[in-house]
Parts: sequence; structure tokens; C-alpha cells
Amino acid sequence: MDKYVIGCDYGTLSMRAVLVRVKDGFIAAEESCAYENGVITGRLPDSGVRLEGPDWALQDPDDYTRALLKCVTAAIKAAGVFPEQVVGIAVDFTTCTVVPMDADGEPLCKDPRLRDRPHAWVKLWKNHTAQKEADDINEYVHKNGLKILDAYGFRASSEFLFPKLLEIYRKDKEVYDCAHTFLEGGDYVTFKLCGKIARSGVMAAAKGFYDNETRAFPEKAFFAGLEPGFKNVVEEKRLENVARVGSPAGTLTPEMAKQLGLLESTVVCTAHADAAVALPGGGVVKPNVMMLVMGTSTCHMMMAKEKATVPGMCAVYYEGILPGYYTYEAGQNAVGDIFDWFCKNCLPEEYKAEAERRGLSAMQLMDEKAAALKIGESGIVALDWMNGNRSVLQDADLSGVLMGLKLSTKPEHIYRALLEATAFGTKIILDRFAEYGIAVEEIFACGGLAHKSPVLMQMYSDVLGLPIKITAHKQTSALASAVFAAVAAGAYGSYEEAAKSMVPPPGRQYEPNTDATKKYREIFAVYKELHDYFGAGGGGMKKLKRLMAQN
Amino acid sequence: MDKYVIGCDYGTLSMRAVLVRVKDGFIAAEESCAYENGVITGRLPDSGVRLEGPDWALQDPDDYTRALLKCVTAAIKAAGVFPEQVVGIAVDFTTCTVVPMDADGEPLCKDPRLRDRPHAWVKLWKNHTAQKEADDINEYVHKNGLKILDAYGFRASSEFLFPKLLEIYRKDKEVYDCAHTFLEGGDYVTFKLCGKIARSGVMAAAKGFYDNETRAFPEKAFFAGLEPGFKNVVEEKRLENVARVGSPAGTLTPEMAKQLGLLESTVVCTAHADAAVALPGGGVVKPNVMMLVMGTSTCHMMMAKEKATVPGMCAVYYEGILPGYYTYEAGQNAVGDIFDWFCKNCLPEEYKAEAERRGLSAMQLMDEKAAALKIGESGIVALDWMNGNRSVLQDADLSGVLMGLKLSTKPEHIYRALLEATAFGTKIILDRFAEYGIAVEEIFACGGLAHKSPVLMQMYSDVLGLPIKITAHKQTSALASAVFAAVAAGAYGSYEEAAKSMVPPPGRQYEPNTDATKKYREIFAVYKELHDYFGAGGGGMKKLKRLMAQN
Repeated sequence: MDKYVIGCDYGTLSMRAVLVRVKDGFIAAEESCAYENGVITGRLPDSGVRLEGPDWALQDPDDYTRALLKCVTAAIKAAGVFPEQVVGIAVDFTTCTVVPMDADGEPLCKDPRLRDRPHAWVKLWKNHTAQKEADDINEYVHKNGLKILDAYGFRASSEFLFPKLLEIYRKDKEVYDCAHTFLEGGDYVTFKLCGKIARSGVMAAAKGFYDNETRAFPEKAFFAGLEPGFKNVVEEKRLENVARVGSPAGTLTPEMAKQLGLLESTVVCTAHADAAVALPGGGVVKPNVMMLVMGTSTCHMMMAKEKATVPGMCAVYYEGILPGYYTYEAGQNAVGDIFDWFCKNCLPEEYKAEAERRGLSAMQLMDEKAAALKIGESGIVALDWMNGNRSVLQDADLSGVLMGLKLSTKPEHIYRALLEATAFGTKIILDRFAEYGIAVEEIFACGGLAHKSPVLMQMYSDVLGLPIKITAHKQTSALASAVFAAVAAGAYGSYEEAAKSMVPPPGRQYEPNTDATKKYREIFAVYKELHDYFGAGGGGMKKLKRLMAQN
Repeated sequence: MDKYVIGCDYGTLSMRAVLVRVKDGFIAAEESCAYENGVITGRLPDSGVRLEGPDWALQDPDDYTRALLKCVTAAIKAAGVFPEQVVGIAVDFTTCTVVPMDADGEPLCKDPRLRDRPHAWVKLWKNHTAQKEADDINEYVHKNGLKILDAYGFRASSEFLFPKLLEIYRKDKEVYDCAHTFLEGGDYVTFKLCGKIARSGVMAAAKGFYDNETRAFPEKAFFAGLEPGFKNVVEEKRLENVARVGSPAGTLTPEMAKQLGLLESTVVCTAHADAAVALPGGGVVKPNVMMLVMGTSTCHMMMAKEKATVPGMCAVYYEGILPGYYTYEAGQNAVGDIFDWFCKNCLPEEYKAEAERRGLSAMQLMDEKAAALKIGESGIVALDWMNGNRSVLQDADLSGVLMGLKLSTKPEHIYRALLEATAFGTKIILDRFAEYGIAVEEIFACGGLAHKSPVLMQMYSDVLGLPIKITAHKQTSALASAVFAAVAAGAYGSYEEAAKSMVPPPGRQYEPNTDATKKYREIFAVYKELHDYFGAGGGGMKKLKRLMAQN
């Protein structure tokens, strides 16, 4: 009988599971499940306690287990496989998403005594209430000349692990004290599956200051410097058992095996990060191939043999994708979000009506109109910083710009400039890699935008002057988790073999048009001029943000 | 019996006439008439000859006389005055609008042999086909160190008289040769009224290189330098009889008196320019009071006793408003046009629906939403250069900018930034006057925007930190022409007396809010930073325009 594995991809709003045949990657079933409580922002469930300000983004850990049970059982049922055919399961997850947990392995927010306390809940990666703590860490590290942030572009964000923990320590000491440990969301699901804590080394390195080479968190002096009582956070909160990428965490607990309808012998793999895992999911198991994970924002992930400091990258750390390689990570804070913003806020009535009449989404209509323009015809260059700039400027206080508006400017001129700006933003990142001697030999892309906007992807290929391969399967990350499950279960001896058998070759490939590439060079030069001017603090952009904050 | 005068204001699309009681300015009747042929752009009437390119803007001179007859006879009928009560008539007109005329006093385009020749038609002020000729003049003047352009901010535009005449000379020599003379549109109507050519010194100085102090056009060497055969253009084309501002041109011809139903003794005043004339129409008959004539674009007009070179002004010339004063003229190329552009191209469906439901224009709705925002709340600063920049940068190749866009940006944030940008643009002009020692002691405003947008006008007052007085009568220019008619007819000995009796005091007055002024100072500093950076050629703005032109 054929063997199968299960890959579970936990995103921000929903979870997707695939049941995959080990020998050839055939996807026997695919299920998805939106989280009942989604992203919690305004008020806490049940208690109705108000969450002040726009920075909260909490989640309900029961949504994770409910989605797991629902999708996995449905997939097994749909495919009609027997329990003994399923040899492994793995999850990938958003990071850093933090679950405060008690000694019994239950999330603190499930404790009736703590259910009305915001800090007892799961903090989603994009919960930004710990900005002060991130600022404090940055200040402390820079003042004391520490190396802790060297791997993170010299800057901690409020999305990281320790700003989140320090915030709980400061703002709700009781919750902090009640916490037996804090787990990443992915580690929590793995724990639920196998009953053992096996922290994802990928996640610990990506957002948790963990060094996969020395296998250590920062020293106590660092934590003590932030807050004396925070000195022993690693020991007191048991931040231990960090596992190497892809290593087996255990096998299913009897209870979980029963609930999922699987055997207890089913191997559970350590969790992976949802963007990083996309590379093997696209069949990329070698260095110097960049994967663009393109959705509301874009993650640029790549492996390399060598370690180099590339200024402006989000992070450079060991074993964040596959064993033995350094992971290079860059990002654009808003990509699809910008196009959404435009379609919701700037599209006149007649465009909306045309889209409806022709059965197109607003974005499909605008893609079509933008594609009909010649390169340079819009006369507009935009800066794609509507949600700040992650790479290479690493500045959340930057904002978007449109230059070249005329009385003859039409919506499609602006829209096209926005598409181009995100492509230029990617070129800035690639150019930075090249500048520091890190070769980018191939480009892959996955994610919603990569699969649904040929206009955008052709533009990226033309702007970058490189071919772009689109991953064959839309659920690139879930498929990747299945690959990890297969290797962890011993079905393959290496990721190379597993990927070769289980991942189909890229689907559509975009080839750059030489003439277009030449024309874009000139417009990119204008983008670069604006980028460097505003990026260096020109134009009063940051002053404006401060004035805005006074309101 | 009370005496009356008639003021006729010829705009770009229509003419408005007022019949005004001399003793107190009571407006006995008010009529308006749109030009049948409007602005001719695509094809010539009758012949259907195609006008290539976007730069043409022709008019039919018969529209001027038809509007005159219709409005004046209707006004007299409506008011029920007797012919002998009407003592004077005056017109103001767009400038420079050129009518090629034959020896019989008929426009060349009425000649069946020339009717299919574009250059035989009236070229409206905004006909831009003579850009090459304007460029040639600028180059020649600068190369030879001439002073001719000193009064015009050192730059001739394609809207000026001699670029237009040189173009006809070069592109249709036959039409040029057939022309007995070329008249400004206002001079043509005056000629039709009184049968005599009395060129408006105001217009000749404003756009015709005529010096009202030396009472001379440029010397022959200048014209010869442009084109040898163009040397004697002033003599050959009889550019003579330039009259001082406000002087009587004659009395009605028997034919015109009969057609209008007036006496032949009715005095006809020399024509005035439609924006410049607004000052006396608002009761401003003294120096150092600036009038903002606010519509699709804004003209800033002021009188001063002293002559100074203020870099970046459109023009500084003698007797362009009232006798004895220098006229200072600045401009913003697009103001109301920008708000129109936004409402047409950037307003989402639900805003449009809300405006319709509440019976508001799009602009009224957006004014309301913009007014509900606090100063600085939008976090956006715009550059109002969607149609280039006239003052103080004098650069048609500049374009609009929006800085500070975020994913949370709403249409009203952008709209408010656009309103503010036009106010900041005015402040740049006022600051430039102050820098060069020309005092601006009071601000008046007239025109469509001044009368219909209290939100905008309060913003201007706050940004400038000065009170703004709105002219009492919406037909400010037509009323001004009536004042000129009254003085020319001898009903008053001075413009001061005439304005005091005939022009009502300002209507609404806007007072600056001290706190708002303080806050705007900070945002203006950001505007100024962007203004200076892009104005000095930064950001690749002009390169972008060149790339666009290659398409």
C-alpha cells in the first residue's frame, strides 16, 4: 500500500492541510479551515474586554486544534486512505506567534481566571503592542555594542519573541508568572500532536535570537540589562529543547491518534516557518535560489552556503530552511495590500461598474488596463512604502509616494505605477544581494499574487531582467510540510530525494523581454533616486509622520 | 433719470454682462451666454479640417458678437432702462487671445478662402501650438542678453502674442500676409463696438512685450533676430494705437447702437484683461492688496507703486490694472482643476453614492469630509503641480506628488492634502513677495472657488495667517468693467470714487485661527522641503517626463 504524509500550513486567517502520496507527491486530498475567531482585535472573546489601540492581533489557540482535527480527518476521509498508510505529519506556522502555556500544557487564556487578560492570549506575529520593548532592546544592544542583532539587520521588531515576552513581564506580571513556558504557535501544535516540546530551531532563530550554530539563546547579562527580573527568562520560562530543522519531534499521542483516526506510530516533525518552508515546497533544495512568497506582503527567502552580513536584510541565520545552510530573509511590508488599498480607496464608480459588468475582480480589471499601457506611459513613479519599508531600509516610519501626477492621470496610470513600484522594491533587494557578493542564480515565486497575476509576474521578470518560475502547486507551504513529514518519517534519506519525487516542476515560467528590461532600467533609476532621497530622511517624510502622531 | 453702464466679461467658455446703476452699483440685470462653438479643438467648423495634436484651442469670433448682442439687449430689456440712460460700455477679455483681421475689419476666418486654414482662426489664450516659437524667443533673448523678458519672469510662454504671430508667419505665410492686423479678442470687441482700434495697453503689456512706460513694442532688431522677414511685424501688421488703461476708445457705431438698442453717444472703454480687472471689481483700487482670482487655476494680481524684480513672478509691468501703478502677477497653473481631477478619477463608488444620496456635489462631500479631519491627521503632503508650476518655479515640466500614503489612507486624506497643497502654493508666492520687499497688506479673493468653498477659504486664511475678504459680487470682473465704463464715460472723476460708490464692501471674510496657523507652519515646512527638492530638479521628476514623452 502507498504511504502518505500530511502537511499543515497555518496562516494568519486559516489553516490548509494536504494529504500527499509519498512516492510521487500526488495530492490525494486538500482541505482548509478558517479560524473561528480569526484575528482578535477589538474585544476579547467571552469577556468582551476591550483591546485599546490598533496594535493588537490576538488569536484563540483552540482555533488551531479545531482546524487540525477538521482538516486532517476530512482529508483522510476524502482520500479514503487507511490509518496505517499515513506515516508522518508536519506543520508550518506564522512566526513569531506566541502561546503562553501552563504546566499542564494548556494555553493560559483557557484558564477561566485569566481569560479576560489580553496578555494571556496568543499573540499573533503581527501583534504590535510591544513596540516600546523592541525599541528598548534596540537601544540596549546598540548602546552596549552587542552582536545579538547582527543577524537581524541590526534591529529587533515588535513582532519578535523577546519584545513580546518582555512586554508580558512588564505589563501583566501575573500572567508572566503563571506561564510555565511560552511556545511558538507551530511548536504548540506539534506539542498537541506528540505531547512533547520540540521547539522549532527555524523559528527560534528567525525571530527569537537563537543561534543554531552555538545552539544558544543570548546570555543572561543581556536579559538582565533589559530588566533585572527578566534575567533568567530562558531558564525560568523553560525555553529549552530547541530542535534542528526537520528533526522528528515524536509520534502521535494516543489521544491525538484517536481523534485524527491515525496510528500512534505516525511521526510528528518539528514545526517550520510558513514562508521559509516554501522553498522546498517549490522544489528548491539548493542554495542561491530565491523564493518570492507573494501575498499581502512579500518574503524573499534564500539559502546560501556562506554567511555574510548584507545590510538591510531582515535576517541572516543558520538552518532556517534546510540543514547545513544559512537563510537569507528580506521582505517588502506591503505588496498585495497596496493593490487592495488602491482598489478599495481609489477606484471610481465607472471602473467598479465595468468590473462588475464583465465579471472581473477590481484587480483583474486594473491588471488588464495597466497591461495596456506602455512602459513609461503613466509618467508616474511610486514608492511602495504604504506600510513602511522592511528591506533594505528597515524603517517603519517611511510612507508611500506618488510622483508624476498630472491632470491627465487616470486610475490605471497610478495602479500601474504601484505594480511597478513593488517590482522595483524587489530589484533593490536583489541588487543589494549582488552588491555584497551573494549570488541569486534563479528566482521562484509562490503565493496568491504569483499564481493569480500574470501581468504582475511578467512585470517582475522584465524589471529584474530574470526568468521567474512559479511553483506548480498553490499550497506550496503545505506541500513543503508534507515533504518534511516524509523525511522525518524516514521515507526519504534527503530533502533532495524527497523534493525530486514529491514536488512537481515549476508551472508557468516568465521570461524577461529584453526591450522592456532596458526601458525599466531608466524608470528604476528614477525610483532609486526617490528611494535614496526619502530613505535617507529627505522630504520631511518622517517629520510628517510625527506631526500625524500628534493628532 | 439714473445712469447705467454695461460691463461685459468674456471668459473662456462664455460671456457675462451686467447692467449697473452708476450712482450706487445696483445690478439691474445680469445675463450670460455660452459660446456656440466653445473652444475648438478637434476639427474646424464647416470645413471639418482636422487639428492635429492636443495643443489647439481656437474660437469663433462670431461667438463674441453673438454673445454681446444677446446679453446686452436682454439685460436692457430685463431691467427696463431707456437707451439714453446707458452712458458707457466696457469689456474685459481673456488674454492673449488673437484675432487675425482683414482691412475691412473682418476676422480672416470668415473669409471663405481662408475658412479651412487653422491659423486664420482666433487663437484662444490657451492655444499652445506655438511652443517652438516661445522656445526660440527665450533662447534668442537669453543668448543675446536682452531685457525683453525681464518683466515676464525671464520667460515667454506659448500663450504670448509674439510666439503666436511668429507661428503664423512660419506655418501659414499666406494667412500672415492676408492679415491687415492682429487684435486681442478684447480689442476686437471694442473695435466692433466703436469702429476704432484702441488696443488695450493692459493686454499689450501683459502678454505682448509692450512697455507702458516707454509706450513701445520691442525694437526691430529683436524681431529680425527671430526671423529676418519678421523684422517689421509691428509696422507691417499695424500694432499701433495702444491705449492707456481705462481710456475711452470712442462711442458706439450707428450700426452697433441700432443693434444694441443704445444711443450712438454711449462711450466705449478700452478693453481690460479678465483677471487683472478683478481688483477694482472687488473694490481694490489701492496698492499692496492682493486679489486671488480662484477657479480652475489661480491668478494672483496686485498693484504696487514701486517696480521690483521678484524672481518667479509671471510678470511685473506698468499699468496693467489701474493707471499709475505697477502690476504684479503670479499664478498657480491648477487649483480647482486638481480637485476636479481628484473627484473624477479617484473617488470610490460609495463616496459617489453618498454624494448623490445627500444631494451634494462630489466636491461638496469631499470638502465636508476633509474639514472633519484635524490638521496633520492625513499624514500626507502633496505638491500641487499637476499642470506644472507657474510661480515661483516657472517650470511646465514639473508634476504632482503625494507623499505620506499609508494602507490606512482614505480618499478624504488625499483630498485634504490637495486642498492644503494649493494653499501652500499660494504661501510660497506671498513669501516670495515678502522676501523681495513687496508688501502684501491685504488679501481678497474672487472666482468660483472663493465663493463656493468655505472649507478651502478658511484653510487659505489659516495657512497664510491672514484674513481673506471675498468679493461681494460673484461677477467681479463684469462689475469691474462696468466701473471702467463709468469712469470712461465721465460719470466719476476717479476709480477710487467709482469703486466706493459702485462696488459693495467685501462679503464673507475669513479670519485665521492662530492655533491652526501654527500647526500649518510645520506642515508647510515639509511642503517647502519637497518644493525645493523637486523644484531644483530632484527625484528624477523631469527625467520621468522625458521618458513619458518617448511613448
